Amino acid sequence: MLQAVSRLSRAAVRVRRVAAQVQVTTVTMAQNHQSCGASCQQNGGAVTAAILIIGDEILKGHTVDTNSAFLLRALRKLGVCVQRVTVIPDQQEVISKEVALLAPQYTHLLTSGGIGPTHDDVTFEGVAMAFEEELHAHPELTRLVEEFFGVVDRENAAMKLAMVPRSAKLNYGTDPQTGQPLRYPLVSVRNVYIFPGIPSLLERAFNGLEHLFAGSGTTFHTREVR
Amino acid sequence: MLQAVSRLSRAAVRVRRVAAQVQVTTVTMAQNHQSCGASCQQNGGAVTAAILIIGDEILKGHTVDTNSAFLLRALRKLGVCVQRVTVIPDQQEVISKEVALLAPQYTHLLTSGGIGPTHDDVTFEGVAMAFEEELHAHPELTRLVEEFFGVVDRENAAMKLAMVPRSAKLNYGTDPQTGQPLRYPLVSVRNVYIFPGIPSLLERAFNGLEHLFAGSGTTFHTREVR
Repeated sequence: MLQAVSRLSRAAVRVRRVAAQVQVTTVTMAQNHQSCGASCQQNGGAVTAAILIIGDEILKGHTVDTNSAFLLRALRKLGVCVQRVTVIPDQQEVISKEVALLAPQYTHLLTSGGIGPTHDDVTFEGVAMAFEEELHAHPELTRLVEEFFGVVDRENAAMKLAMVPRSAKLNYGTDPQTGQPLRYPLVSVRNVYIFPGIPSLLERAFNGLEHLFAGSGTTFHTREVR
Repeated sequence: MLQAVSRLSRAAVRVRRVAAQVQVTTVTMAQNHQSCGASCQQNGGAVTAAILIIGDEILKGHTVDTNSAFLLRALRKLGVCVQRVTVIPDQQEVISKEVALLAPQYTHLLTSGGIGPTHDDVTFEGVAMAFEEELHAHPELTRLVEEFFGVVDRENAAMKLAMVPRSAKLNYGTDPQTGQPLRYPLVSVRNVYIFPGIPSLLERAFNGLEHLFAGSGTTFHTREVR
């Protein structure tokens, strides 16, 4: 009995401590909320975004998604209000439905993953289906793939990287450190920006193209609250 | 010119190296895919789940979400096929819409966050709205809150923790280490399990209630692929 009372007492102390932390966090959040509230809800002209992480390996718990945390911080710094992050599997129909649902609701939709050379990578297919477009071998991407991979055979798996929706645009970023143009472009279709899933490649592509996403000029500085 | 060629050459090497990594990852994924494919798509009786992370602080990039990675690994080990993770803000209408959309599609819907004592915490309100239920002061939760917080005033903010949808159930877990019952229950409404956002509390609640989510007896062992 005494043991139970002691355990309960320890639990109560823990809960109070957590409640105090929650209080501190909430005060900090309330302070921050004003600026975000203004950019997200009250200002009709706010730049908004959703992030779509595509990958079976993440849903299976094999790989921890770090891309959404990077993009959330980076977009926030640019004054963009991210209103949703969704993680879905590498399935063309699921990707298509999600893109068709989200793209019209936000200024930008950023996807990550599913654009490699194998049959599991169906993000371009999903985006094409969402906008009822066909895939085609983009001449400029075809040349780049040949250049990078030394591929001449159109049946080679690497050529899948050049098969993009008809209305796809190629966005060439600038290396922020050297000021030189990056060699490989980010593909976009309407307001959907199709990033690679490999974190180092995603980060390089984003950092080289910040101007595409920048908001009204208002930038926010983030900090950890726990 | 020579510099450009050299840069291009280095870039090509990097791309080939990445492509090789993609290849390795993909082979591993393909090997894993068979088991997950079987549990997720082909087996109609598979236990499925979606995870809903609720929190402005995550969307703003102030706090990195680690709860979804924990739940993905833990559910996978129990043989549960998680098909979606979504992060949304602390807004009652958004929570309500998302719960109403997701709950009917999966065996379980696990939410995290938004159940603290402040006005920002509206997860119980959102879940109640999704199922067209009212909130009420649950007698057992009221007693627990009084016990833990020493509260007698019903107007006290902590009492918000006891205001749950009418059909809410209280699930008391077992501490896996001591075998003793945990003192504070996990609240569920139909197939929606409403976890706290604080990682240590979420993990303790989940670990104490694994049997609620366990699949058909098939368990999977996860490992990192990068």
